[in-house]
Amino acid sequence: MTTKKIFLKEDEIPRQWYNLAADLPSPLQPPLGPDGNPITPDMLAPVFPMNLIEQEVSPERWIDIPEEVLEILYRWRPSPLRRAVYLEQHLETPARIYYKDESLSPPGSHKPNTAVTQAWYNKQFGIERLTTETGAGQWGSALAFACKLLGLECKVYMVRISFDQKPFRKLMMQTWGANCVSSPSNETQAGRDILEKMPDTSGSLGIAISEAIEAAVSDETGKTRYSLGSVLNHVMLHQTIIGLEVKKQLELIGERTPDIVIGCAGGGSNFAGLAFPFVYDKINGAEIEIIPTEPEACPTMTRAHFAYDHGDTARMTPLLPMHSLGHTFVPPPIHAGGLRYHGMAPLVSQGIVEGLLKPRAYHQLKCYESSLLWAQTEGTITAPETSHAIACAIDEAIKAKEEGKEKVILFNYSGHGLMDLTGYESYLNGELTDYSLPDEELEKYQDALKDLPKPEIKKTGRW
Amino acid sequence: MTTKKIFLKEDEIPRQWYNLAADLPSPLQPPLGPDGNPITPDMLAPVFPMNLIEQEVSPERWIDIPEEVLEILYRWRPSPLRRAVYLEQHLETPARIYYKDESLSPPGSHKPNTAVTQAWYNKQFGIERLTTETGAGQWGSALAFACKLLGLECKVYMVRISFDQKPFRKLMMQTWGANCVSSPSNETQAGRDILEKMPDTSGSLGIAISEAIEAAVSDETGKTRYSLGSVLNHVMLHQTIIGLEVKKQLELIGERTPDIVIGCAGGGSNFAGLAFPFVYDKINGAEIEIIPTEPEACPTMTRAHFAYDHGDTARMTPLLPMHSLGHTFVPPPIHAGGLRYHGMAPLVSQGIVEGLLKPRAYHQLKCYESSLLWAQTEGTITAPETSHAIACAIDEAIKAKEEGKEKVILFNYSGHGLMDLTGYESYLNGELTDYSLPDEELEKYQDALKDLPKPEIKKTGRW
Repeated sequence: MTTKKIFLKEDEIPRQWYNLAADLPSPLQPPLGPDGNPITPDMLAPVFPMNLIEQEVSPERWIDIPEEVLEILYRWRPSPLRRAVYLEQHLETPARIYYKDESLSPPGSHKPNTAVTQAWYNKQFGIERLTTETGAGQWGSALAFACKLLGLECKVYMVRISFDQKPFRKLMMQTWGANCVSSPSNETQAGRDILEKMPDTSGSLGIAISEAIEAAVSDETGKTRYSLGSVLNHVMLHQTIIGLEVKKQLELIGERTPDIVIGCAGGGSNFAGLAFPFVYDKINGAEIEIIPTEPEACPTMTRAHFAYDHGDTARMTPLLPMHSLGHTFVPPPIHAGGLRYHGMAPLVSQGIVEGLLKPRAYHQLKCYESSLLWAQTEGTITAPETSHAIACAIDEAIKAKEEGKEKVILFNYSGHGLMDLTGYESYLNGELTDYSLPDEELEKYQDALKDLPKPEIKKTGRW
Repeated sequence: MTTKKIFLKEDEIPRQWYNLAADLPSPLQPPLGPDGNPITPDMLAPVFPMNLIEQEVSPERWIDIPEEVLEILYRWRPSPLRRAVYLEQHLETPARIYYKDESLSPPGSHKPNTAVTQAWYNKQFGIERLTTETGAGQWGSALAFACKLLGLECKVYMVRISFDQKPFRKLMMQTWGANCVSSPSNETQAGRDILEKMPDTSGSLGIAISEAIEAAVSDETGKTRYSLGSVLNHVMLHQTIIGLEVKKQLELIGERTPDIVIGCAGGGSNFAGLAFPFVYDKINGAEIEIIPTEPEACPTMTRAHFAYDHGDTARMTPLLPMHSLGHTFVPPPIHAGGLRYHGMAPLVSQGIVEGLLKPRAYHQLKCYESSLLWAQTEGTITAPETSHAIACAIDEAIKAKEEGKEKVILFNYSGHGLMDLTGYESYLNGELTDYSLPDEELEKYQDALKDLPKPEIKKTGRW
């Protein structure tokens, strides 16, 4: 019998997060304010609580996870590491395929790892209400869940196309007591401006972020802050518990360090959570291929410049050094709503620039085909975002077969697709098509970045 | 730190099922054929494979679980036993509340325990195609999943109201390659007959069972059989792995035998799965209160006679000795579709008659109120069926507080409610009402049973 599930006990959970910023070959470029100068922690204070800002700029390699946060994480962590033996058999691959199952959290994805952590830090800081945006709804439901557990109010701006496609996500948020509205909304200046210009827009994460930040900073009581589910350093940090657990789990069964590590990347957090602890190994000499995957329809990592850009459409965020399609880019309405973002986490972006990460883009149809094969072998129904990791894992397993190599492949099973079945319906009915961003359109958006400052990476070491 | 999750390793899984029929104080009454005489195994052969019929009539107390079935169950079993510490804290109860989490299987409920087992036995017997009915959709998706894993075809007749209310369930079945139609359908004589008489019917499990059996027995190749997700002895048997795992899990943490064991009961299988191993203890002298719960709108156990009745509307099944509202009863369209069944498993029914089980009925609004409290304390969203167990567990925890007693309460968390969020929406919008079956209507249906044979229970022992 092959072991299919590897569990850790609660007292085996990692007790520190890993901060890749401490180990990047060149220093991380700072966020810039409207004047082009690096912003100071104080300038972020209206948006985030100071304890999270300290994490955001921390140079420490290891950061302690507070005991009270661990107590909340124990509700569903440590999560199982599973081996995809049925997929292996189907593919007749000599590869061993492992996946970290983040779909078992109550909201159904990896997102609560940082949601409960951020809610806890905000509460410690005296905050009573959080605002946020959500794409596919995974993040919004995770923050709704977290706020309910911590006794905070929660307001979610949900990208219109997902709001319409995924009514169940809104109901989840309501069940956990959150207030969820379609974005662009009439509740903020940013939303009203967009609606005036583009009344039929399907919305975007960039727009929804503008709305959520505006709603936070305009609350005069000072008790509201904004919470972001990806992109920022402290979010990546909180997710590293995923990869750190995997290391213990692989050790437990005597498995070697993976040859290939894969995660889908929208803003970058589930990828980073799994991969960064292995990037550490790679920096220290291990031979690992580390692959963030994205949609061809929104090719941030594979086709966009590494540039300074805003995280949101209304340019309320500081300029971040990242791969960006341009803050005015509105991605086509593919089903992987969580991957429809114009930017990419600075830590992931710099990892690409430094050659530590090798991004890859996949078409929607191939991803659904992979999901269906997954459902019919491994038996579970995956989120459309996660299918971008599965497609890559399958490719790599087939390659291992062709090469006759017994590779170890690891990917992050970031969420289940039980709220995303309309996408499966469209696929099964043959209604989906593939879409590649035309070069001329890409250039148009990229041109908008020309007048902004350029990040400089001073490479050191062998990368 | 209180342990919130208790896991078993794969090699600690129970290797035998428990058959309550071996221990009931009086012998189980046989099913009867159309002539009023006990039916023989041969008469069931067009409907079920002989290996399952042998289990159905087995007098053995312990029945080995085949190794190959265990291999399939390992995909998600053993399932965790959890302690509801947050609910306990909220209720300020001295009770310790445990729940067996059956929601983590790929289809999201306890149903796959018997689905994969039945599919395996059918395949062993040379069967190539299974038909079935489904109410809420939990069973249909479980059998679709099981058939895909075993390489069988699957056809599901889904009760119309659920088919309309829960399109995602149908999509799950399609993702696993099954063919799912709304029942009553035009595909069977039984369906056409009902549609002619009641074109606007919301459907019922009784009707859908008639359709599925007709579709199985009318296949002339002889390679199709019917599969039932509850009611029958062999289904109860397969589910006892739930309670047997719980016993090992309680022992692992040094917890005593529960004072109170609770499960919701539609056909009886999730209740039986958790409770029967504890009924064994009760028969052997343990003081345990064992409570199957049901909706006030479909009060099979609490208000209907113990009688011989058909399991389906078109009277295709044998007469079974059970509590029954009458095979023509069409329950009101409450959201707990899995509890909308006119009958109850003979083993559960006889347990009630013998005084081993004490059924209780709950109104829909109280169940949703309990679900919401559960979501906002324990953090997960439960199936409307399961909420009938949670409502009872909360009642018992409050009673323990009033009595100042440190009781141990155990219930079966039979499934998640992620596909059932429209019910939550109706509840949150104040659109739901409670419904009690009027006495005169109950009597009308019960009168139909008068001309059928009466089961005789020859009680023995102290029950």
